Amino acid sequence: MESVNIDFEKSGGLVPAIIQDHRSGDVLMLGFMNSASLAETRRSGEVLFFSRSRNKLRKKGESSGHVLKVRELRVDCDADALLVRVEAAGPGVCHEGFRSCFFRKLEADGSAKITEERAFAPETVYRRQKPVKKP
Amino acid sequence: MESVNIDFEKSGGLVPAIIQDHRSGDVLMLGFMNSASLAETRRSGEVLFFSRSRNKLRKKGESSGHVLKVRELRVDCDADALLVRVEAAGPGVCHEGFRSCFFRKLEADGSAKITEERAFAPETVYRRQKPVKKP
Repeated sequence: MESVNIDFEKSGGLVPAIIQDHRSGDVLMLGFMNSASLAETRRSGEVLFFSRSRNKLRKKGESSGHVLKVRELRVDCDADALLVRVEAAGPGVCHEGFRSCFFRKLEADGSAKITEERAFAPETVYRRQKPVKKP
Repeated sequence: MESVNIDFEKSGGLVPAIIQDHRSGDVLMLGFMNSASLAETRRSGEVLFFSRSRNKLRKKGESSGHVLKVRELRVDCDADALLVRVEAAGPGVCHEGFRSCFFRKLEADGSAKITEERAFAPETVYRRQKPVKKP
């Protein structure tokens, strides 16, 4: 047993977090965590990332309901990457409707081939609410 | 089939590359690739990373002989992360002597617990050659 400090500074406050299905071993996605998202992930038992595009914490599954329940949290030798083994609520983690974000295989000619079946229809899961009309 | 451009620019020229054992599904490590290391990985069929600390391409297993043979290369929905399914030559990928770099579990109290057995003795694998005496 040893105490560990995650090295958030190496990459400007963020570490990559690999999300793996704890039963199948399939890699589902990769996100980034800052110190606050790791703390809240540990506290709540559900995965939160730091969204680089939105520049804020975001709970995975916030809009889709497809949350990721933490089953095990692992850290690598240099303490600058995380492996989060999860139980995924819902049919998939990818906003394009696939179980895993890694649904494309890179072929030798540089093209990408979709090798998975769609698990859900993103347009129904991520349907935007109509904006409230202002009076 | 679609053409794909890996988005190296989002993170300053580098994308995270998850290394997964193609048979067991175990996640072995995470490294970073730039455009040149991905090209050379594809050309040679063995994994090369861009070493952030050394600021250059580095073939995984260069000194240990524990190279990673590419079995499948996958790309995520945003084309900014790679999943490399490999066959690992040698007993482990970690410079600390473990099969996987993720040999520690993060406990609820913030400590890290080693949950794997050492697969090899790093001091014999990474033994430095004696510097050649100059005349």
